[in-house]
Amino acid sequence: MLEFEILKKHRYSDARLGRVTTSHGVIDTPAFMPVGTRGTVKAMTPEDLIASGSQIVLGNTYHLYLRPGHELIRELGGLHRFMNWHRPILTDSGGFQVFSLTSLARVTEKGVEFKSHLDGSTHFFSPERAMEVQQALGSDIMMTLDEPAPHDAEESVALASMNLSTRWARRCQAMHSPGDQALFGIVQGGMFPDLRSQHVEEMVDIGFEGYAIGGLSVGEDKATLLKVARHTAPLLPTKKPRYLMGVGTPGDLLALSGMGIDMFDCVMPTRNARNGSLFTSEGKVNIRNTRFRDDARPLDEHCPCPACRNYSRAYLRHLFLADEILGLHLNTVHNITFYQNWMANIRQAILEDRPFDFTGVESYRLEEDAEG
Amino acid sequence: MLEFEILKKHRYSDARLGRVTTSHGVIDTPAFMPVGTRGTVKAMTPEDLIASGSQIVLGNTYHLYLRPGHELIRELGGLHRFMNWHRPILTDSGGFQVFSLTSLARVTEKGVEFKSHLDGSTHFFSPERAMEVQQALGSDIMMTLDEPAPHDAEESVALASMNLSTRWARRCQAMHSPGDQALFGIVQGGMFPDLRSQHVEEMVDIGFEGYAIGGLSVGEDKATLLKVARHTAPLLPTKKPRYLMGVGTPGDLLALSGMGIDMFDCVMPTRNARNGSLFTSEGKVNIRNTRFRDDARPLDEHCPCPACRNYSRAYLRHLFLADEILGLHLNTVHNITFYQNWMANIRQAILEDRPFDFTGVESYRLEEDAEG
Repeated sequence: MLEFEILKKHRYSDARLGRVTTSHGVIDTPAFMPVGTRGTVKAMTPEDLIASGSQIVLGNTYHLYLRPGHELIRELGGLHRFMNWHRPILTDSGGFQVFSLTSLARVTEKGVEFKSHLDGSTHFFSPERAMEVQQALGSDIMMTLDEPAPHDAEESVALASMNLSTRWARRCQAMHSPGDQALFGIVQGGMFPDLRSQHVEEMVDIGFEGYAIGGLSVGEDKATLLKVARHTAPLLPTKKPRYLMGVGTPGDLLALSGMGIDMFDCVMPTRNARNGSLFTSEGKVNIRNTRFRDDARPLDEHCPCPACRNYSRAYLRHLFLADEILGLHLNTVHNITFYQNWMANIRQAILEDRPFDFTGVESYRLEEDAEG
Repeated sequence: MLEFEILKKHRYSDARLGRVTTSHGVIDTPAFMPVGTRGTVKAMTPEDLIASGSQIVLGNTYHLYLRPGHELIRELGGLHRFMNWHRPILTDSGGFQVFSLTSLARVTEKGVEFKSHLDGSTHFFSPERAMEVQQALGSDIMMTLDEPAPHDAEESVALASMNLSTRWARRCQAMHSPGDQALFGIVQGGMFPDLRSQHVEEMVDIGFEGYAIGGLSVGEDKATLLKVARHTAPLLPTKKPRYLMGVGTPGDLLALSGMGIDMFDCVMPTRNARNGSLFTSEGKVNIRNTRFRDDARPLDEHCPCPACRNYSRAYLRHLFLADEILGLHLNTVHNITFYQNWMANIRQAILEDRPFDFTGVESYRLEEDAEG
């Protein structure tokens, strides 16, 4: 099951304040979903995630299928229980990872054969298989299997991928029955507005509980990403949640929320954290920087996270330089809290009909957005 | 300041139930101190430490002196504030690390010259310097600088080290003034009972707020360790806390508590955790083991830690095999909780005048102890 209510539209943009209700609870939108690739959002406990304001996490079907295996997770009571996260989970279909992480993926009408990046063993994913795996995981929101086209694909290539994705989406929908899980369709069409328009129609024609924009943030420049999103978002059904996959920076989230996107996921806050790259209301900083050596101040005085409440910049720098696990943990908790507060600020601005002018916006606003 | 009360003596052993009071609070003894080498107990937050039942942590003077530097920590308000741990801290003197981690340590009457294991730079530690560094860190309990003899040292070598350690201890005591910090002396004397007896007298003659047995757990066999401890412990002043440095297994803690030792520290629970080696009431297990692959049970049904309350063995194994930081975190939280519950069980047995017969004892009791 999945319900979506739009509580309010924004006076200053196409943003919507909404609420998605799933079998495992509610997600306030626009929402950011931390990525929990292998059944854990790296370096955070579920309690940390809740404290950060996260309401939903993303799990990667490809990784969990390979290790520990979806059947094992099913036997152990599903992914929620396995990872002790009893709130909503969205799983991707595995398609993106099959095409980006494995070598020699061979695509046929039936599906895609690939070799595991772990041990080189051969596997086969079909739309039916992608659904079975996600059903075993028991996620609240499943995604259709698609074939993303490279960002620099010619129109004929993008069209062929798009058409295959449509046929696969139909097979996914045929495997889907009403129940606890919802299924979102993914709009492809490369960087070509006409293809995007056509694919929205095809996907809406099949009918899903929500729609994602896929095939973006795959190497194209920022202006192209924003252009395609700005073209596609308003074509999607108003009354269904809209999810832009794999994006992005705080500035991206601001601009894309303003275009009416409701859901986002990205490894950026967690991955950057582990590289010492931290988001603050005064912009991005690298905690290695020598200027933090004796800096007794909190990383970000506006941030309520434990890393900012309890520790100095000097201590965070020390932990990072000493390769201490606590440093990776505190950095991650901070970046995820920053992202969740960012989304909360976006939602608050929509609610109060204010422009997106909250603290920190000037450090992250996109040039393209300022123009757009 | 430091106060030590003995609340009860054990009917079945020489164990004492006690309470050490420091400027930053109370430590129930016999006590285990998790090791926080670089200003963090690896993979745990201070909140995790408190939840585990830890009341005091150990900081390594050598490591903190080199990075980030004791002067910096002093400027930032001391080690408690730096690491956000507002309960007792004991710092070692750095001597053990200088001799074990650095190459070509050159010892003179004045002190020891050594090269940093981080960058090869040359440094000099004297008894005065070791005190200055610990005073800058602001630990509740400081340790005298000593020269530990190798476990296989001949008697003449052990004697020379012991005599130097006495002279250095006197210089440390001369640097020490009444105030928030306490100073413990370290008894050396190698594996030679006569030297140990002599050194206890010399150290007691100087006079400290507590006494450690040093130079054990440095490569000698378990029987020798227990023999030297059994000889030395009863010679130490009854009314001062007794600390055995760098020990040990749960069985060691049981046997040595029974000899009247009050304080312990060891990297074993934290280091083992990061290698997947976990302590349970049924003995030590390696979480990699294939038999845990689909094991839905908690790691240890008797353990109240979050890892045991919220996750399956199968999940802990998955995290470990996937190199996930959360696995290192949960393993560490578990092992430290196991150690702290172990000490709590020892204290409870002393209080209730029961033998050490609590859950798990049979899995860890030492052969030497059973005989002794």
